[in-house]
Amino acid sequence: MGRISRRLGELTPNQALIVYYLLAILLGAFALSLPLASRQGPLPFIDGLFTATSAMCVTGLAVVDTGSRFTLFGQLTILLLIQVGGLGITTFSVYLFFYLRQGVGMRGRWIIHETLLHTPVDSLRDLVRSIFKLTLAIEAAGAVLLAFAFVPRLGWTTGVYYAIFHSVSAFCNAGFALFSDSLIGFRDDPLVNLTIMGLIILGGIGFLVMREVLASCRRPRAGGRRRLSLHSRLVLWTSLALVAGGAVLIALLEAPASFRQLPAGEAFWIALFQSVTARTAGFNTIDLNSFEAPTLFLMIFLMFVGASPGSCGGGIKTTSLALFVAILHSRLKGSAHTNVFRRTLPDELATKTLTLVMLAALFLGAATFGLLTVQMTGIPFRESGGLFLDYVFEAVSAFATVGLSLGVTPQLVPAGKLIVILLMFVGRVGLLTVAFTIIRRSREDAVRYAEENIMIG
Amino acid sequence: MGRISRRLGELTPNQALIVYYLLAILLGAFALSLPLASRQGPLPFIDGLFTATSAMCVTGLAVVDTGSRFTLFGQLTILLLIQVGGLGITTFSVYLFFYLRQGVGMRGRWIIHETLLHTPVDSLRDLVRSIFKLTLAIEAAGAVLLAFAFVPRLGWTTGVYYAIFHSVSAFCNAGFALFSDSLIGFRDDPLVNLTIMGLIILGGIGFLVMREVLASCRRPRAGGRRRLSLHSRLVLWTSLALVAGGAVLIALLEAPASFRQLPAGEAFWIALFQSVTARTAGFNTIDLNSFEAPTLFLMIFLMFVGASPGSCGGGIKTTSLALFVAILHSRLKGSAHTNVFRRTLPDELATKTLTLVMLAALFLGAATFGLLTVQMTGIPFRESGGLFLDYVFEAVSAFATVGLSLGVTPQLVPAGKLIVILLMFVGRVGLLTVAFTIIRRSREDAVRYAEENIMIG
Ligand SMILES: [K+]
Ligand SMILES: [K+]
Repeated sequence: MGRISRRLGELTPNQALIVYYLLAILLGAFALSLPLASRQGPLPFIDGLFTATSAMCVTGLAVVDTGSRFTLFGQLTILLLIQVGGLGITTFSVYLFFYLRQGVGMRGRWIIHETLLHTPVDSLRDLVRSIFKLTLAIEAAGAVLLAFAFVPRLGWTTGVYYAIFHSVSAFCNAGFALFSDSLIGFRDDPLVNLTIMGLIILGGIGFLVMREVLASCRRPRAGGRRRLSLHSRLVLWTSLALVAGGAVLIALLEAPASFRQLPAGEAFWIALFQSVTARTAGFNTIDLNSFEAPTLFLMIFLMFVGASPGSCGGGIKTTSLALFVAILHSRLKGSAHTNVFRRTLPDELATKTLTLVMLAALFLGAATFGLLTVQMTGIPFRESGGLFLDYVFEAVSAFATVGLSLGVTPQLVPAGKLIVILLMFVGRVGLLTVAFTIIRRSREDAVRYAEENIMIG
Repeated sequence: MGRISRRLGELTPNQALIVYYLLAILLGAFALSLPLASRQGPLPFIDGLFTATSAMCVTGLAVVDTGSRFTLFGQLTILLLIQVGGLGITTFSVYLFFYLRQGVGMRGRWIIHETLLHTPVDSLRDLVRSIFKLTLAIEAAGAVLLAFAFVPRLGWTTGVYYAIFHSVSAFCNAGFALFSDSLIGFRDDPLVNLTIMGLIILGGIGFLVMREVLASCRRPRAGGRRRLSLHSRLVLWTSLALVAGGAVLIALLEAPASFRQLPAGEAFWIALFQSVTARTAGFNTIDLNSFEAPTLFLMIFLMFVGASPGSCGGGIKTTSLALFVAILHSRLKGSAHTNVFRRTLPDELATKTLTLVMLAALFLGAATFGLLTVQMTGIPFRESGGLFLDYVFEAVSAFATVGLSLGVTPQLVPAGKLIVILLMFVGRVGLLTVAFTIIRRSREDAVRYAEENIMIG
């Protein structure tokens, strides 16, 4: 035992993160496979593994109906995995940004305080404690608000329990719902819409941004509000653009189709909610099968982008998208460096961002190919009834830990389940550790040969 | 007139390329819309524009059947556009690589001779002349071989004409066929298969590689064959891997489906041919509608990659793919520079490659969204019968100037035709000019602000 803990102590942060997730997922899968955890007979282990991975990676894809198949014990296990998974991600990714730069020395420490945190923190322990406190406070507030909607419908006990479950699930961007139709029953309820969207957005913009905005409101500088860091401004503007742009496009695209016979108010809530939820939350307030192909294509894009760094959300992140656009813009202008909001980005960051995005695209492409192969081999495309989009949607949803689905999750064959499990795990843990690896100072000692150019045109 | 030609003389190479293509396309569209050009009444101008763009950009997508709808005059116009378009691309992209470096001075000139051409050329005129001669020689050889297959079936006049047309169309990777079912009628004919594949591959590996391989075979160095340049080795190995890998995967995937009842020989030819043709040629020897979804997904990938630089082929190019993989590999190892075949790549090249690939992906994504929107709005996805994949396939095929289709080309609405025309034009002319822009030495004089880092994880 002492030997194991000594071994664990020797792990790099990357390895520790992977071990943390693997252990929690295996324990969760074991617990969920117990007869105690589910009604209608015990769950097959692969379904337990799928559900535990989906919960721990805060994805929300479900092979069985969470509300009716799991007992209270099963549901609480899922809730615990969501909370442990969500906090683990937030803490680690904040640590990633915060601590790596401490290694650089006092100057690095000073830079991060000045540019990112603005309000200095004394230690990592304080930082983690404040993450936990903020999480708890927001989830409690969300639960109180949701209770106003759920208690009148479901009575005190169930209503309060449902309020807590959905508040945690929303803030952690997990997307698990206890209602079998997700939140379709509340599609035009302003309180539920606003609370859930608020929780999703707060849970998705990242802890450092929340902290900085709070500090900036609390302690305005003499002579006007303090300027936010580049990171926060980038996150806030990109998130706003994606939420608003997504909602407007969904409303316009669906106006002649699924929204045709809906009252304007209901269409407004549905469009806004689907735009917010696609960015890795995973609840839905409409059956996505009634959407058109272009709308689903747009949602695939929103899912792939995902939330912001240092949050529970997945995807390649808002900052990567913003940087990507900025880099393209500056390259096409013929400029060698990239400016955003009157700040010049470190040169290295461009290659790192592009590498991260392309690696994500490459892995996602390969896994999608695998999923299509195990699910659709033997059926000529013309006779498969359009399931192609279903599986592409499913793969992106899993990789970006969104949890939206066109309904094929329960139809996955065992190999398909394993691929989706891998997508969720890599999409969650892998992207972080890859970011960790490429953000690490590059070793300069590798072999260096004579330079030679080639054509890429 | 003198004023116009003076104006033309002042164009940058980029602008000249765009003007060359636009003028040829407009002239071609005008010619194809003449009553003289088509049977069954004159072609609507938009269809003439579509066909002219498809021919000039050597794509091969067709809104009408080339063999039955066009008269001999119409077909010869198409053939002329293919030849003018194909040579224009080859010449310009070789010029791009060759001449840009001359601007760098004698050292640059020396480097390109040493590393790329191996056999020095005296002037751009000589280079262009040798491109023309090689093109003509290969097309003539191809026509002679094809005549052996076509003359017995079609008689002397038609047979020889068809042999010339398909030889040019194949070497230019244009994909226009005079048979209404492309080359399905020759699916198990070894002579036609080998000749067309040979023409496609030669036309797709690029002029500089052909020239270097020829020179290396002709004049071996004392003490063994001369080593090929990094560029040629990268092109040859990547092409080989894609052709062989693609064929094996297609054969494996389709073995339980469309190949189930075929003789092994026929399946072999079909798998190999479809792997070769997807990399921007655009002929087909099987109805692609009988393929499965994973096979079509694989073909979308092969189409997006496309041929090699300095050729008539489209796509992001084999070298971009190879560099992309090499860059990812070195970044994940934590190395700051990228080595390929014991050569270190210039640092700039990494960012340039990634920028080109991502820009291509971004534009393609946006245009696909547009195409889906104009073609599929108003129909709930579930009722659209899987046309999603058809349009994604069509968009990638147009952008990479491949010309393969699942059959929706004639069903395009006018706005859809315009989007596909834009895709073909940008996929052909745009990628080259973008490459030109980002390969150009970056200006260092743009505003430079204080550096500030952000999180991308
Ligand atoms: K989720
Ligand atoms: K083509």
